[in-house]
Amino acid sequence: MSERPRLLLTNDDGIDAPGLRALVKALSAVGDVVVVAPSSERSAVGHAITLSDPLRVDRYVCDGFQGYAVNGTPADCVKIACWALLNRKPDLLVSGINRGINTGINILYSGTVSAATEGTFLGVPSFAISLATFEDPDFGYAAAFARKLTLTLLDRGLPRGVYLNVNVPAVPAEEIEGVSITRQGQALFEEKFDQRTDPHGRVYYWLTGQKVDKEQDRDVDDGAVQARMVSITPVHYDLTHYDFLQTLTGWDLEP
Amino acid sequence: MSERPRLLLTNDDGIDAPGLRALVKALSAVGDVVVVAPSSERSAVGHAITLSDPLRVDRYVCDGFQGYAVNGTPADCVKIACWALLNRKPDLLVSGINRGINTGINILYSGTVSAATEGTFLGVPSFAISLATFEDPDFGYAAAFARKLTLTLLDRGLPRGVYLNVNVPAVPAEEIEGVSITRQGQALFEEKFDQRTDPHGRVYYWLTGQKVDKEQDRDVDDGAVQARMVSITPVHYDLTHYDFLQTLTGWDLEP
Repeated sequence: MSERPRLLLTNDDGIDAPGLRALVKALSAVGDVVVVAPSSERSAVGHAITLSDPLRVDRYVCDGFQGYAVNGTPADCVKIACWALLNRKPDLLVSGINRGINTGINILYSGTVSAATEGTFLGVPSFAISLATFEDPDFGYAAAFARKLTLTLLDRGLPRGVYLNVNVPAVPAEEIEGVSITRQGQALFEEKFDQRTDPHGRVYYWLTGQKVDKEQDRDVDDGAVQARMVSITPVHYDLTHYDFLQTLTGWDLEP
Repeated sequence: MSERPRLLLTNDDGIDAPGLRALVKALSAVGDVVVVAPSSERSAVGHAITLSDPLRVDRYVCDGFQGYAVNGTPADCVKIACWALLNRKPDLLVSGINRGINTGINILYSGTVSAATEGTFLGVPSFAISLATFEDPDFGYAAAFARKLTLTLLDRGLPRGVYLNVNVPAVPAEEIEGVSITRQGQALFEEKFDQRTDPHGRVYYWLTGQKVDKEQDRDVDDGAVQARMVSITPVHYDLTHYDFLQTLTGWDLEP
């Protein structure tokens, strides 16, 4: 039996986001696409999951686009798709196309990336894809790249526990300088809280911030995107720092 | 000038959680304790941060315990403490004592651990500490261990970018078998969604699940706790999978 591959698509910008539409359009030719996405934007939720509230799933249909809208996080969407909604595990998970870059330490905050982490937990080859702009973007090139990468991964697979974080520069296709296999940047942020007073006299804060020490190296996710290259970072979820583990073994920590 | 060390304390169980009280009590003798914690329980929020809503900070005073209650996530608490509330960076961040174990792939969901990640982003030596029970626990031994570890870290520091994830078995102090320096377990979960119908006829789902292939090895976080040892896992936030990066470089991914 040669079934068409089943592709699970999700995101963190919400089920009505244009980046997800572009992905569906590009991948429908490659396999059977199932969309399970948050019913509203859930950016920067990290790898949050919903334990204290029940999840709801609604059919979403709009202009020929259809999917399941879940009142949860991207990780919730992947879990409920794989454990409850689908009768067989998807062959590949694609999360995106995110509006905005997901690089460096920011990938720990990213709902887009965490959906791919969750897919990987469940044994599904997974990648996250983001477009490096917050402007009203053209997802065409990123969607075409997602299609090519999907075909490659359906063919070659990924090692257990490894997934890919893809970032695409927001420039016209002809200005893309190629692909760079990168490591996650480690640049930190200079943040501040904008303190304001509401009309009722109560103080509130908005988080703002910008990256310091921007990465220049094309071998680093941010640097590659700066150089107009598609950045692909292989990532995993073993957070152990093996080098320091050796050091720590020598410390006297017995109670 | 020999100032007392400043210790920033937070958690994900909320500012009124007994585990945080126990920590404050144990660490007040060691340094000047500042509590900045979520105003309500924020478990399993992962490394979520609040971007779309303003944050509020309220003074919290109860039975001699005082702190700042923030309507955000553990990561928000650490950010707003370091960038807005404190006039100098803390010397150490301690997140906990969490009610419930934080080991294996679950640390990616953990608000407790993500607070320590955030502290590390901000250059503050940090550890998360959790007690392996959901019963009404005795935090005494875990708090005493946190105190010992705090003194050690104030003395020795941690390498930039590395932090510690500590899990304490929920057994009487005399039954603790020592300390094990561990790696993060990789055991997966068998999950299911309990499907129910609400009184209005609408379907909803609850996530449930249990770990499969429990870790037996004392060198792994879960295995150590099972063996009644305090588990200390050194962790970091570079998710790059360096081995597969080499492989991937050989793939044809050019558009």
